[in-house]
Amino acid sequence: MKMDDCIFCKLANGEFPTNSIYEDERFNVILDLAPATRGHALILPKEHFANLYEIPEDWAMDAMKLAKTLATHMTDVLGCDGFNLVQNNGECAGQTVFHFHLHLIPRYKDDGQQLLWNPLSPSKEELQEIREILTK
Amino acid sequence: MKMDDCIFCKLANGEFPTNSIYEDERFNVILDLAPATRGHALILPKEHFANLYEIPEDWAMDAMKLAKTLATHMTDVLGCDGFNLVQNNGECAGQTVFHFHLHLIPRYKDDGQQLLWNPLSPSKEELQEIREILTK
Repeated sequence: MKMDDCIFCKLANGEFPTNSIYEDERFNVILDLAPATRGHALILPKEHFANLYEIPEDWAMDAMKLAKTLATHMTDVLGCDGFNLVQNNGECAGQTVFHFHLHLIPRYKDDGQQLLWNPLSPSKEELQEIREILTK
Repeated sequence: MKMDDCIFCKLANGEFPTNSIYEDERFNVILDLAPATRGHALILPKEHFANLYEIPEDWAMDAMKLAKTLATHMTDVLGCDGFNLVQNNGECAGQTVFHFHLHLIPRYKDDGQQLLWNPLSPSKEELQEIREILTK
């Protein structure tokens, strides 16, 4: 299903001109207009799923299959030195458009971007507590 | 295949004690010891693949299937407000252990972490040039 007021639904389905770099039955892959680096692209499903929670399992798996294929191709062709996959869900996680998308981010030595976090130092007891919560 | 000198091979295969939160035939999921947030975990394949380029397609797809399942479970149980999937390849992309891993990062309002980039502003011509490189 498409959503009338979703910009990524429109972009994925070619209703606006885009810099598409790949298209198949399920996905359109477009260059990000505000990229982290040269070649930064977004895998967009043509149907509307808000996030990782909503996207069906087989679509998520196909998105990953495509990410692997495109990361390999983009690395070969762009000559980048590394690659990030990033998939954000929820405003506090940096999601700005609420249509599932998987970021393909070629990385270059000295590209000046940071995609890291400040590591915390939980105690053994804290880790054990979280483990118990997650496995009970 | 396992690698003798790979710490993630050892952790994935239970050779060291870990805070494992999930295990199946292919994967072990452990809590990150230097987490971005409460509950930050790593999906580790039990076989050694250095990165997204090396991991077989079906393993990558299974990792994504598992990421969706665990993100849903972790969000329910931890009560987080968002979720990031991050998968880094290459030193310049922030990969520090050269055994494929997929970060599962629960996010909380005001958790103080940034996983963002400084957006660039490429011209139409630059985007068109990249598109041509990637699609020819």
